[in-house]
Amino acid sequence: MKSVRTVIVNATVVTMNQKGEIYNPGFVMFEDDVITMTGEMKDLKEDASLADATRLDARNAIVMPGMINLHTHMGMIPFRGLGDDCKDRLRVFLIPMEQKSMDEELVYLSTRYAAAEMLLSGVTTVMDMYYYEEEAAKAMDEMGLRAIAGQTVMDEGACDFEDPSEAIAYGENLIKKYKNHPRITACIAPHGTTTCSPDLLKEAYRIDSFYKVPFTLHTAEMDYEMEYFEKEKNMTPVSFLNSIGVLGKETLAAHCIHMTEEDLDLLKENNASVAHCIGSNTKAAKGVAPVSGMNQRGIAVGLGTDGPASGNTLDILTQMKLCADFHKNETKDRSAFPAKDIVEMATIRGAKALGLDGITGSLEPGKQADLVVIETDSANMFPVYDPYSALVYSANPSNVDTVYVAGECLVEGKRLKKSNMEEIRKCLLNKMKQTDFGKYMELNRDLDL
Amino acid sequence: MKSVRTVIVNATVVTMNQKGEIYNPGFVMFEDDVITMTGEMKDLKEDASLADATRLDARNAIVMPGMINLHTHMGMIPFRGLGDDCKDRLRVFLIPMEQKSMDEELVYLSTRYAAAEMLLSGVTTVMDMYYYEEEAAKAMDEMGLRAIAGQTVMDEGACDFEDPSEAIAYGENLIKKYKNHPRITACIAPHGTTTCSPDLLKEAYRIDSFYKVPFTLHTAEMDYEMEYFEKEKNMTPVSFLNSIGVLGKETLAAHCIHMTEEDLDLLKENNASVAHCIGSNTKAAKGVAPVSGMNQRGIAVGLGTDGPASGNTLDILTQMKLCADFHKNETKDRSAFPAKDIVEMATIRGAKALGLDGITGSLEPGKQADLVVIETDSANMFPVYDPYSALVYSANPSNVDTVYVAGECLVEGKRLKKSNMEEIRKCLLNKMKQTDFGKYMELNRDLDL
Ligand SMILES: [Zn+2]
Ligand SMILES: [Zn+2]
Repeated sequence: MKSVRTVIVNATVVTMNQKGEIYNPGFVMFEDDVITMTGEMKDLKEDASLADATRLDARNAIVMPGMINLHTHMGMIPFRGLGDDCKDRLRVFLIPMEQKSMDEELVYLSTRYAAAEMLLSGVTTVMDMYYYEEEAAKAMDEMGLRAIAGQTVMDEGACDFEDPSEAIAYGENLIKKYKNHPRITACIAPHGTTTCSPDLLKEAYRIDSFYKVPFTLHTAEMDYEMEYFEKEKNMTPVSFLNSIGVLGKETLAAHCIHMTEEDLDLLKENNASVAHCIGSNTKAAKGVAPVSGMNQRGIAVGLGTDGPASGNTLDILTQMKLCADFHKNETKDRSAFPAKDIVEMATIRGAKALGLDGITGSLEPGKQADLVVIETDSANMFPVYDPYSALVYSANPSNVDTVYVAGECLVEGKRLKKSNMEEIRKCLLNKMKQTDFGKYMELNRDLDL
Repeated sequence: MKSVRTVIVNATVVTMNQKGEIYNPGFVMFEDDVITMTGEMKDLKEDASLADATRLDARNAIVMPGMINLHTHMGMIPFRGLGDDCKDRLRVFLIPMEQKSMDEELVYLSTRYAAAEMLLSGVTTVMDMYYYEEEAAKAMDEMGLRAIAGQTVMDEGACDFEDPSEAIAYGENLIKKYKNHPRITACIAPHGTTTCSPDLLKEAYRIDSFYKVPFTLHTAEMDYEMEYFEKEKNMTPVSFLNSIGVLGKETLAAHCIHMTEEDLDLLKENNASVAHCIGSNTKAAKGVAPVSGMNQRGIAVGLGTDGPASGNTLDILTQMKLCADFHKNETKDRSAFPAKDIVEMATIRGAKALGLDGITGSLEPGKQADLVVIETDSANMFPVYDPYSALVYSANPSNVDTVYVAGECLVEGKRLKKSNMEEIRKCLLNKMKQTDFGKYMELNRDLDL
């Protein structure tokens, strides 16, 4: 098959390569799924190889690497906005509704919706963890995302499997199924440090390490988790994970809010990485993770939205602004966490946290063509003195105009290109109405008309 | 002249009236600039009076009162994104550039731009303070906003007047000029507690109180301000304002980050109100104002963006999410600052802070038709179980579809109706290029093509 060439021209190209190069005006060229060249417009050779290329004139726009969402639960769209300010929401809404109403079809339809929402906001790579993850993997694949599908396992029976060993077997099969897929990887994602026995954690880690896929779990997030480890084991969650041998370069610890200096050292020594979910953590009044201590040690820290039940929206631009504001305020230093660092967290550092920094996270020849075009025509995007500043402090997800994953154009002119948002929403809504979610939904009364 | 009737039907109407009523599905009817009726759709009488009314079907949309921005500097759009993470930005960029490049025309063009940006994001009322405020008032009037135009005065020579007494006279003339205007009010806005002498503060307060217009100034915001009052006067900024007799019901204190319990009591006793600028305060690492203490005392606290140099964007939706996340985290209580309270801060409490709660801030018969239609078709806005949650945790400024101020439709289908965004931007850009801003602007190279 003849290869397809694309060249994006006249843009402000924010490469996020090691030198931090910005080409302005610049171009990005790719062939099928691989970036072949980037540079200043004056260095673009208008030769025969460009004659049959698709050209996108991105004048006045910023082109950046696709953003990376390191922690979410895409099956949970039906929970968005349900009991947001309720003190004990987990027990009042989430657990009972999940047990009663979550099934394979709902996971599939919700994940498809979440994938659409992320693509429209410029997220091209996601680390998802939830139940019935085979359905999630299928949905993410169909939508064209780059993703890691994490099958959640826990001691207690979940909505998909009563017995964790069945969930483990299902997860391992899923890993094998996607072993050679160009965009989708699967892994086993234990729920958390207290919801899984040490043996379950070790078994999951053994399998994930064997297949060289991420091992991700909720870590040092909850008050009861901290109390449990202190009282029962005289340990921290991180020192516990280390003591049972599951802290390694595959480990992506989500949250890490409550950390000692020793915990941070342990993460660094073991080459583990962190999914920082500032919006979810602060909305739930859990605190601000010590990211400056992580950065000082060179731990790979990227950004996550957490699920739509916790952080509500699934875009990374919103997290970028929250991350800058919270950490500047936390460190009492307005020059701390400069915009460029925040964009790194959203892109190349996120890729590193997933072990995908050879594949995505920056615009460099040889890497996958995962990229986002952000328009600066909207009122909030003028003037642009510094594209990093504009991305962190001014942009919102609706400024995302065009999105490519693996060279495929998935969003064009702010609309999905190969799928239909209305159909995706209608299918999810109709399914929700057949479940207990329906009775809370009088506000969505007309969507199916 | 025959009156114009409009009725918005089939919406989720969030009234923000004292009972906190939501009509769903509901309607809002207005005649010229005044709301005549609101209620459930079943109570809408389809009689002759409706025959000639303009009808807007807002199915699936949320209709809310126009949002209120209590503190900004609209003339400062040229500064947006300039030196964002610079340690001493005020002295490196802001003061020299303002002195050298700010003139009447730039204030006019920048304020016009800022008004457009705010309208597009659902802000219908704004408290502005800057220099050459007559130009700002003119721009806000032309754009159709409801606004208070605050002429800034300070001891040191500013870009408009060398002598503060000239600025005071200019401000008083402006107040008189707009005395009977239906939407625009003017006032004298002293710069801050340390940048104005006690006499200047007293003179400004005397005039503002006489004309019953807001008296607003930066208060308890800066570290050097706190040090100055402690060392020189053994006072806090708020106790100082009280001691010279300028704390009253006209007083709108912007920021109020560093407050003692006594300061909060003083605000309450004197019926003063607060413009809370969470995004600006935290981005500059200044801290989080004690809003829960203000709320406990029943002080009127609304939201402000601060200028585009500080908070970057001028929409209130972004501030709503930041406000919820910061204060939940600050109070360590996920149920604190529930979404409904945040929407109150953005609307009726903001109106109260300006003494405009009889005029705007809620959808009630007799009030001005200042209202916003927010679509829920975008990916981030589904599902909606609770419209307050959707507004605070999910919405972004691009979800604003239609905006009315005083019954006039200013935004329709996400576009300005009576003015042209491209023309507004082009005029501002061309002017900027003739000033020192131009030399920082290579990134905006093509906008004028
Ligand atoms: Zn999570
Ligand atoms: Zn200010």
